[in-house]
Amino acid sequence: MHDAVLEVYWETGWAGFTLDAVARRARVGRAALYSRWSSKATLLVEALEVRSPLPVPVDTGSVRGDLVELARQLVDGYTGPAGLVTLRAALEARVHPDLLAGLTDTLNTSRLLAAREIVRRGVARGELPAATPTTLLLELVTGAVLSHVLFAPGGARADPGYAERVVDAALRATSPRESG
Amino acid sequence: MHDAVLEVYWETGWAGFTLDAVARRARVGRAALYSRWSSKATLLVEALEVRSPLPVPVDTGSVRGDLVELARQLVDGYTGPAGLVTLRAALEARVHPDLLAGLTDTLNTSRLLAAREIVRRGVARGELPAATPTTLLLELVTGAVLSHVLFAPGGARADPGYAERVVDAALRATSPRESG
Repeated sequence: MHDAVLEVYWETGWAGFTLDAVARRARVGRAALYSRWSSKATLLVEALEVRSPLPVPVDTGSVRGDLVELARQLVDGYTGPAGLVTLRAALEARVHPDLLAGLTDTLNTSRLLAAREIVRRGVARGELPAATPTTLLLELVTGAVLSHVLFAPGGARADPGYAERVVDAALRATSPRESG
Repeated sequence: MHDAVLEVYWETGWAGFTLDAVARRARVGRAALYSRWSSKATLLVEALEVRSPLPVPVDTGSVRGDLVELARQLVDGYTGPAGLVTLRAALEARVHPDLLAGLTDTLNTSRLLAAREIVRRGVARGELPAATPTTLLLELVTGAVLSHVLFAPGGARADPGYAERVVDAALRATSPRESG
């Protein structure tokens, strides 16, 4: 079912995406589909969340390890089955904010909550100053991963040291110069 | 003409994008269109380049100033009329690499050439070490701008200090710790 949702959405975009088209692709009855999902937005968000799991903060014992794990999850997410579909949805959410707002909220919030949890632990361990700019740190890591996946030949998945390099750069970028 | 190209492409994506559809939207004859553009890829690339100018390295006298100017050009590009269309094209180029390869090459190369020129001047002025990682610097700036435009409420254009903050962070990220 979720594969059918992502396939149909990828091919048609939001304008052509319908519960009927998903029912045909997945070879299930329309009635069953309509009884379970109240809207096409709900169905699309669920499929994206299932096929491209939201980032989960993992406690590796160090802020660098936690961020490398987050960066790897982002690389896996963007290069995985739902990665480009998620980006397409984020783009279309700008054109149809009322319809897809729930989707981008879910994605943004999960990333930001993961980053906050990682920074909170880093501050508690004495690894980071309390004033660490979490949003900028997250934007540097997310953005570099996104830029690399979209624009770099071969992509980030083929480069095993990429997550570490981005995290080290983002940590230097957001730490006070005096402590360097 | 270029507006019609971007409108049609935004609405239909690559699969539905045809010279015929552009001719209808722009109310020009098909013969005129076909005589001037040999392929739909050429037409789309030209429209994207005209409506969202490629970044141009400006010599402001300092590497920070040059990078802030580049970051502003990227913000203007991604938030301008062709910004989201360009991203959509970059996504679709992953699905149709043979058809759209020229487009992403043009965009990536222009960004990378601009960044290289800025770093070269910075090294010549003695502001940057010769070993400055240009690609990483560019990915941090481009990526943070892209992430901010896509995911941050309000977007980067509404935040006048954003370009400076990103550039300062990227410069810290890519400079050796010892010199901090």
